[in-house]
Amino acid sequence: MKDRHRLPFDRLARELAPGELKLDESTRKAHAGDKWFASRVPDAVVIARSAESVAKTLRFASEHRIPVTARGAGHGYVGGCVPVNGGLVVSLAKLNRIVEINKSDFVAIAQAGVITADLQRAVERLGLFYPPDPASRDESTIGGNIATNAGGPRCLKYGVTRDYVLGLEVVLADGTVVRLGSRTHKNKTGFDLARLFVGSEGMLGIVTEATLKLIPRPPFRACLAAGFRTARDAARAIGRIFRAGFLPCALEVADAFTLEAARKRTGSRRLAGCTAHLITELDGQAQSVRAELKEVARVVRSVHPKFIEQAFGATECEKIWQLRREFSYALRDTGLTKLNEDIAVPRGRLEDLFAFAEELQQKHGLQVACFGHAGDGNIHVNVMVDMTQPRANDRSKAALDDLFAQVLAWGGVITGEHGVGLAKKPWWNMAVAPEVRQLHRRIKRALDPHGILNPGKFV
Amino acid sequence: MKDRHRLPFDRLARELAPGELKLDESTRKAHAGDKWFASRVPDAVVIARSAESVAKTLRFASEHRIPVTARGAGHGYVGGCVPVNGGLVVSLAKLNRIVEINKSDFVAIAQAGVITADLQRAVERLGLFYPPDPASRDESTIGGNIATNAGGPRCLKYGVTRDYVLGLEVVLADGTVVRLGSRTHKNKTGFDLARLFVGSEGMLGIVTEATLKLIPRPPFRACLAAGFRTARDAARAIGRIFRAGFLPCALEVADAFTLEAARKRTGSRRLAGCTAHLITELDGQAQSVRAELKEVARVVRSVHPKFIEQAFGATECEKIWQLRREFSYALRDTGLTKLNEDIAVPRGRLEDLFAFAEELQQKHGLQVACFGHAGDGNIHVNVMVDMTQPRANDRSKAALDDLFAQVLAWGGVITGEHGVGLAKKPWWNMAVAPEVRQLHRRIKRALDPHGILNPGKFV
Repeated sequence: MKDRHRLPFDRLARELAPGELKLDESTRKAHAGDKWFASRVPDAVVIARSAESVAKTLRFASEHRIPVTARGAGHGYVGGCVPVNGGLVVSLAKLNRIVEINKSDFVAIAQAGVITADLQRAVERLGLFYPPDPASRDESTIGGNIATNAGGPRCLKYGVTRDYVLGLEVVLADGTVVRLGSRTHKNKTGFDLARLFVGSEGMLGIVTEATLKLIPRPPFRACLAAGFRTARDAARAIGRIFRAGFLPCALEVADAFTLEAARKRTGSRRLAGCTAHLITELDGQAQSVRAELKEVARVVRSVHPKFIEQAFGATECEKIWQLRREFSYALRDTGLTKLNEDIAVPRGRLEDLFAFAEELQQKHGLQVACFGHAGDGNIHVNVMVDMTQPRANDRSKAALDDLFAQVLAWGGVITGEHGVGLAKKPWWNMAVAPEVRQLHRRIKRALDPHGILNPGKFV
Repeated sequence: MKDRHRLPFDRLARELAPGELKLDESTRKAHAGDKWFASRVPDAVVIARSAESVAKTLRFASEHRIPVTARGAGHGYVGGCVPVNGGLVVSLAKLNRIVEINKSDFVAIAQAGVITADLQRAVERLGLFYPPDPASRDESTIGGNIATNAGGPRCLKYGVTRDYVLGLEVVLADGTVVRLGSRTHKNKTGFDLARLFVGSEGMLGIVTEATLKLIPRPPFRACLAAGFRTARDAARAIGRIFRAGFLPCALEVADAFTLEAARKRTGSRRLAGCTAHLITELDGQAQSVRAELKEVARVVRSVHPKFIEQAFGATECEKIWQLRREFSYALRDTGLTKLNEDIAVPRGRLEDLFAFAEELQQKHGLQVACFGHAGDGNIHVNVMVDMTQPRANDRSKAALDDLFAQVLAWGGVITGEHGVGLAKKPWWNMAVAPEVRQLHRRIKRALDPHGILNPGKFV
């Protein structure tokens, strides 16, 4: 492959700006994978510094039928940007300019490589707010967030990345640059093509710039954390919060295994005896949020939690969220390999899911840690595998088979926010009906007739 | 056309349930148009009572290359469901069952023909909430709302129809029935195909059933209405509300012409001397909403409105909204023909738009009445035409040309919520770049290779 493409790569190098095309081994190796474990070293890397360079690269790749895999910060969790068929990786990381933040129009324009948290800080300084908050926002890019339609805790109230994408600049497979959508908050001109690219995992085109909707920054926030004796109590508390007419900004849950790991790591006495933990956050006008948090506390108390903790204002809230972040570190401390499966179940199935996770543990002799976005039914089911044990791979595969089969039987989905990529590809056929897979292929063919965009993935 | 299709229609009649296929003139005439002025009598009408019948109809139509135009309540404003090439109209009006409302999952499943307000009342009785509120919601259907991605005042805070569509049952052009999306609030399994059909105006497939996201019903609402001496004051008030960190449920504005017509109709003394009028609504927990409305009133008072009126609770709020509804009737009272253009401008252009509307009046000698969703920048610019005057048609066309050119120059769009249909088709090429139109055609061809779905429209 490499030799065959040597000559055309020289031509591409001449078309691009100096230094954009990289053929050296260390650059290629650095663009081989993401946070999942699969990797493949590409034949060449384009570190694009303009949409025009992306367009030139795609025209070239289209002509020579060379696979092209787009990449943001390489912070995905499902191997979505692994160039499994080799070819070119196009990195958007240096296309990282915040083009505009407009206070009157409530709009931000950002190139694909802008780090999400950087954009958030910039808009918040102006009293504006870009809500989507994937856990990786300090490292992941707007383009990567768009490719995976990234979520996060705040999506419960505010929606996911898609809901903030007003317009996109996209380079199509043949190198055509299209500007889709607009900078208005509402637009019904034609099909909703901009949002077709949101979540398409680099398989329909390469996003180079996004026009994002902003909202006024809520002036105040408050949090409540609570520990429960049983998962049922936590599920009940969640139900009662909704029934009282609250749509919190976030509503996060963690299970017994996670809490035990966190207790070991942090030495927290509070967590002892808790088998479920809830964090909820409210935001808005200070006076309202203060009063409402007290009301939420009253609602939660009605199911007799083991403890309740309230936090008012950003500083206190961050302390509560710090515990949530410790969950991931605590699971890492176990020394086990964490298979993080971001399934989503219908909201009413939360308790069933926790019970099923326990059954899974017993059946397959693997630990299972659940935590995540309870409000959305989007729970990270972490199957913890000791890879030194015999048949560890087979057993974890069998556990995932069971998990996904049950989730689908409940009307749930195998991925709520990470995407399919390579990690979920083995279950693609199980999760999606033949006629819907066929529809995916029709759309894919219409936009990428030669199949050069991120090939080897689920379509 | 009719004779040519007589024979195959007989075959279709045998495949459908008794009474589903209608060939009589009165039924055909009743399915010739919507609220816009264009119409065309179809060759036959299928009043579908099942998705299977829609599938049979499309298989038949696909085989015989007969145009098929889907239709909900026929309440669109742009001629979107006018069967301009004749053929078959498929009415979804009798596919009107609410299949499920699930309190635990926060999901409703409704067939396409369910009246939007009926669904809203049903979910609200259970303490749930389906926010999208097009003005026509007492008559329009969920399917029609999906075809046009319907908006409404509450979309400012809650988003449009698309944001509540979790899953769809769609019949494709060849009669294949696909179930897209899911009943989970988050889903990243593959491309976001369900939402590609939202707003596609019946040109990509026919939606027969929708799985909709619900949220907890806000327990309380409050409204504020204010009259201003100048449009600038109203625009300033809007800016200050946002800057204070409020994202109201609704934020509606009306201009001088509209107010003068409303004053004449209602005899309201308050409106005398007002050239702009604002309605804003907050919803949420009662105590918070009461306190926040007072704060909003304080903010609005800072620009010295001519009057302010506050309303607490649903009954009082409805009185304020009644005035908003009178605006439409008042414009009708003028006896002029109202060309309702639902443009959207970047939010910061509101004041410019009002000034431009005045210029338009003077230049073309036509009255222009503006009112609508100020928060979204989505303003209904109603060009009021006296059709008895010479060259009335040419003059109104020229006024619309000027309006759309200016809106596009500001980065706005020619339709914010009604869609393109026939009404905006003359400006489609002006509004959408050639490469984006080409992309529309590629998607259309992929899903409807023989072009039988709602032909004669913008793609």
